[in-house]
Amino acid sequence: MMIYLKDIPLPDAQSRFEQALKDADLWKVLDIEKIILDENATGQVLVEPVWAKISSPQYHGAAMDGFALRSETTDNAMPTAPVILEYGDQAVYVDTGDPLPIWANAVIPIEDVEPLDEKNQISADARHPQQIRIRKGVPPWSHVRSMGEDIVATQLVLPAGHVLRPVDLGAIAASGHAHLMVARQPKVAILPTGSELVPIGEDLQVGEIIEYNSLVLAAQVNSWGGKAVRFEIIPDEFQSIRDEVERAAEEFDLILLNAGSSAGSEDYSARVVESLGELLVHGVAVRPGHPVILGMIHGKRTVPIIGVPGYPVSAAMTGEIFVEPLLARWLGRRQYEPVIIKARLTRKITSPAGDDDFVRVAVGKVGDRLLAAPLARGAGVITSLVRADGLALLPRGSQGLPAGAEVEVRLYRSFRELERTIFAIGSHDISLDLIAQYLALRDRRLASANVGSLGGLLALRRKETHLAGSHLLDPDSGEYNLPYIYEYLPNVSLVVITLVHRQQGLIVLPGNPKGLQSLEDLPREDIRFINRQRGAGTRVLLDYQLGLLGIDKGSIQGYNLEEYTHLAVAAAVASGKADCGLGISAAAQALNLEFLPLFKERYDLIIPKENFTGSLLAPLLDVINNHSFRQAVSSLPGYDVTNMGKLVVEI
Amino acid sequence: MMIYLKDIPLPDAQSRFEQALKDADLWKVLDIEKIILDENATGQVLVEPVWAKISSPQYHGAAMDGFALRSETTDNAMPTAPVILEYGDQAVYVDTGDPLPIWANAVIPIEDVEPLDEKNQISADARHPQQIRIRKGVPPWSHVRSMGEDIVATQLVLPAGHVLRPVDLGAIAASGHAHLMVARQPKVAILPTGSELVPIGEDLQVGEIIEYNSLVLAAQVNSWGGKAVRFEIIPDEFQSIRDEVERAAEEFDLILLNAGSSAGSEDYSARVVESLGELLVHGVAVRPGHPVILGMIHGKRTVPIIGVPGYPVSAAMTGEIFVEPLLARWLGRRQYEPVIIKARLTRKITSPAGDDDFVRVAVGKVGDRLLAAPLARGAGVITSLVRADGLALLPRGSQGLPAGAEVEVRLYRSFRELERTIFAIGSHDISLDLIAQYLALRDRRLASANVGSLGGLLALRRKETHLAGSHLLDPDSGEYNLPYIYEYLPNVSLVVITLVHRQQGLIVLPGNPKGLQSLEDLPREDIRFINRQRGAGTRVLLDYQLGLLGIDKGSIQGYNLEEYTHLAVAAAVASGKADCGLGISAAAQALNLEFLPLFKERYDLIIPKENFTGSLLAPLLDVINNHSFRQAVSSLPGYDVTNMGKLVVEI
Repeated sequence: MMIYLKDIPLPDAQSRFEQALKDADLWKVLDIEKIILDENATGQVLVEPVWAKISSPQYHGAAMDGFALRSETTDNAMPTAPVILEYGDQAVYVDTGDPLPIWANAVIPIEDVEPLDEKNQISADARHPQQIRIRKGVPPWSHVRSMGEDIVATQLVLPAGHVLRPVDLGAIAASGHAHLMVARQPKVAILPTGSELVPIGEDLQVGEIIEYNSLVLAAQVNSWGGKAVRFEIIPDEFQSIRDEVERAAEEFDLILLNAGSSAGSEDYSARVVESLGELLVHGVAVRPGHPVILGMIHGKRTVPIIGVPGYPVSAAMTGEIFVEPLLARWLGRRQYEPVIIKARLTRKITSPAGDDDFVRVAVGKVGDRLLAAPLARGAGVITSLVRADGLALLPRGSQGLPAGAEVEVRLYRSFRELERTIFAIGSHDISLDLIAQYLALRDRRLASANVGSLGGLLALRRKETHLAGSHLLDPDSGEYNLPYIYEYLPNVSLVVITLVHRQQGLIVLPGNPKGLQSLEDLPREDIRFINRQRGAGTRVLLDYQLGLLGIDKGSIQGYNLEEYTHLAVAAAVASGKADCGLGISAAAQALNLEFLPLFKERYDLIIPKENFTGSLLAPLLDVINNHSFRQAVSSLPGYDVTNMGKLVVEI
Repeated sequence: MMIYLKDIPLPDAQSRFEQALKDADLWKVLDIEKIILDENATGQVLVEPVWAKISSPQYHGAAMDGFALRSETTDNAMPTAPVILEYGDQAVYVDTGDPLPIWANAVIPIEDVEPLDEKNQISADARHPQQIRIRKGVPPWSHVRSMGEDIVATQLVLPAGHVLRPVDLGAIAASGHAHLMVARQPKVAILPTGSELVPIGEDLQVGEIIEYNSLVLAAQVNSWGGKAVRFEIIPDEFQSIRDEVERAAEEFDLILLNAGSSAGSEDYSARVVESLGELLVHGVAVRPGHPVILGMIHGKRTVPIIGVPGYPVSAAMTGEIFVEPLLARWLGRRQYEPVIIKARLTRKITSPAGDDDFVRVAVGKVGDRLLAAPLARGAGVITSLVRADGLALLPRGSQGLPAGAEVEVRLYRSFRELERTIFAIGSHDISLDLIAQYLALRDRRLASANVGSLGGLLALRRKETHLAGSHLLDPDSGEYNLPYIYEYLPNVSLVVITLVHRQQGLIVLPGNPKGLQSLEDLPREDIRFINRQRGAGTRVLLDYQLGLLGIDKGSIQGYNLEEYTHLAVAAAVASGKADCGLGISAAAQALNLEFLPLFKERYDLIIPKENFTGSLLAPLLDVINNHSFRQAVSSLPGYDVTNMGKLVVEI
């Protein structure tokens, strides 16, 4: 039997799940636990309000070291007309915290008192004199911590549903409790399935994937107050998966069955749920994440099960959308609430009209404007979630939004983090990663969106970035960047400084089996080339160099075969599809290929003047002039830092 | 030897401490630990950047179940002119995640394919047909997860100093790591000292205090990433304290010595620090918290020690101001950053000019204005920290701020929590605690500041509260609240509804040994009365009732003895200072006294119309009409809910 996905809207899926949980009497705090009041109670959720059993303080106590007395007896004291009180009957010494005698209603600090001995001289024993002399009046209840000042017995200390913070524990202790009634932590079983999966730490063969969704899900569950247990990887076999789900249903409160939730030939999750209980939802109209399964396992107990999609972003989002709210309900606390801001999109996004679409964005504050730059959309790109500053929601019914549109962004970071974020839109270079690392130690974050050199210039024109990285060669002049700046950014006051020169060269198999040496070898009959797409900086560079050498493009086998990234070129070589391609050294190194350096290209940072002189970017300019940073970049293969920081032009 | 406090400014104290830590080479990450990459890594701090060891994915993989092929072979496919590809040479079946054959550059989903058998009929085996028929072209790299789409080997995955979140763990695993280099968690010894202290859970004698500062400090330390160990309570003896500090210095990274940090006769902390090392600071000009000690213990190792003041608010603030930044430094992460908002003070605050003064405030949003109502200032009132929505900083040099002044508030709660907060300034009643509890289950918070009935009316006049509780008796008319409303809130459109009637009566010793029955007993010669202060609602009530009965105030012993709260009256009775006083039942109950009910007084809620009809207060009106809430209030001693929710007047 093949079960097909039928995406239903998110609110429908949520209410179907909620109703099934209500029917099973599982839409509430699972159990109440009595725990000892100690520091481990932080983060637990009160299921009952805490009413004070005792008052705090339980008695009128001295708030300073001094003498307890009755305020009225000091009424007439003046600097020139002191009052003298008898020690014992009218005044007694108290340390801070000591209870006041019943008859006293104030404390005078010891430093405001002249202790007298039997001869009316200053007493040697300041705390046990015969009399005390006072030169100013003491208002009633001065320097007294009154009974019940903090807590009055029977008052509400904390309401039910409160998530305990450190200070709360103190108030609960002060109100006479030694135990707490809290919600039991839900036990969550996480079952990774997939014959292609291998555990973290094992060597990978082609076709194998490191299993880390269970790691992310377990960490999410624990951070939301649950207790996660990761099962071992289960192969894609119906019976094995069914057996493990059945076993998990015996002792866990929730089962997360990871992957196999789609409708592929090896996707058994839906059938397993059907065979053990009830399949409520198969497919939710939410991106990323849509092949989500919601169901109930009916064994000795009824246990909800969530089929979590296999793509890591979908998996993590499924946690946020379905698991966190359920744990909140079971713990009796509110759902997690993100901070929501409004920001303007730096480029358009399209979205399926039927889906709630969560788009990961980098957020930057440029001038007074908050900007959201959409990151990679692929559900497989977990680094997009790591790099995301927030999620922009494009609700059902929207087919997308144009550049410049305002979107609500659920922030993953604090607003103050955004205020120290340097926003870089443009061409990416690996040295930007190093800058990010060095900036992290200098109170700045680098958020970058990689849209290519020309995209960076356009972002500068729209004032949507603090700076742009660019390596645009002008074939007519052989000059980098400047001709493009004059064309695209006329009348903009800016500074161009060189970051690096980097090697472009031929990427070949290890040992260079075809004995390639330069571009002049490309027309050889035994050489198959792999090219970059039209418009790529590297393609512009190739054409320019071929022109200088007078080589006919048509004579090169594979000139018209295009790949879209440095790494795709390297992959074509690694796989034997081509013998060589032009690219940067890092791509060759990433796939353990050999690199034949040919040309140096210049990679500049283009920075509008107002940013260049501002305090936000000062640490970045500091990094560029930092000796250790320059060493780190120069140790990258194919990188030359000789001109790093050199002013190219100031316009 | 007596060591006197000498308060120094906070920045000076911090820099002195920092310099001493630098001198001891302790102003940095303490140690680096290699840990296994598992879900427990959440919250740990990376001490080294994570660079990708491998790319992810490591191969071009199918992103859907379907057939791998070369895009070019489908270029001419049209609905009316299908293309047929040979299975095996031109197309092969792939499940999602399977690696693509080297020659392929696209995947066509299985649902877009007609599988054909040897007779050119639709094949029964959809995945192993003889040929496939395709009716639309497939762009290159369609439905392919490209090698390195997520991570390219050598790229920066996460910078040093990053605090790990669940998704980060996935990205680190995907980039080929099975271990992490993180900062070792600092070990913090917490030493409570004080002969008056008893552990949580033990019965209290007069003069004893429950020791809970160590609980709060330990919970703080753990929540900031340290590992706290609470020592047993040490009596106030120099040698015992010295011995324990010496012992703690052998194995802990930081010692928090709680209380004894002031300059009282039993304050040994400063001397202990001097005898074992160096006393850097004794007294910091910060409120609450000023008798802070900062020092270094020089034993086999040098270990910093912080003498934490004994008052619970001072203790918790010392944690925030001195301990958290040190732990952040030792963990290599940024200090915690509160969200800061601007709000207007609802009443003036005075502040010592020489101190950085942290004032706890309740924050509410009334209309479009954010308001900060100062809470109890006492360093002993830990509930003020529990109830605080934030801290307003009055910096050194300021002697205070007038009502209406704008202050920066470091929020303890999220902004969204503030938006669902009902702000109640006025007279307090215990039923408001119950309302708070019921509101917590209805998506609202009640933040209340108790300034008395008249203070509430004035807050309403300034539009600084959503509602006010009031029980103001007009002696001329015998009417509650309305005469005052007409006087203080002319031309304000508002609604008055009764919350409760509550008993006022005589508070007497258990068993009523003097056989009191009514106010007519007060002039008896054997009766000593204790009164409330002038202006208190209860005093107004007493005078009104005495007038009705024709009793001369002068005939009552103790009529001129004043206390300031219901509880203080009860305490006077409990201590034998007086035989009786007028107050509410709850005060009697709190001190296990007897209560003789005499009169019912009316306690109303006064609510401006625009709030009464708004959505914010709807749950509160719902609570007032809730049967279970009414039952809960009516079960309070002396409470009558007959008129609860009754409209008194609509103006």
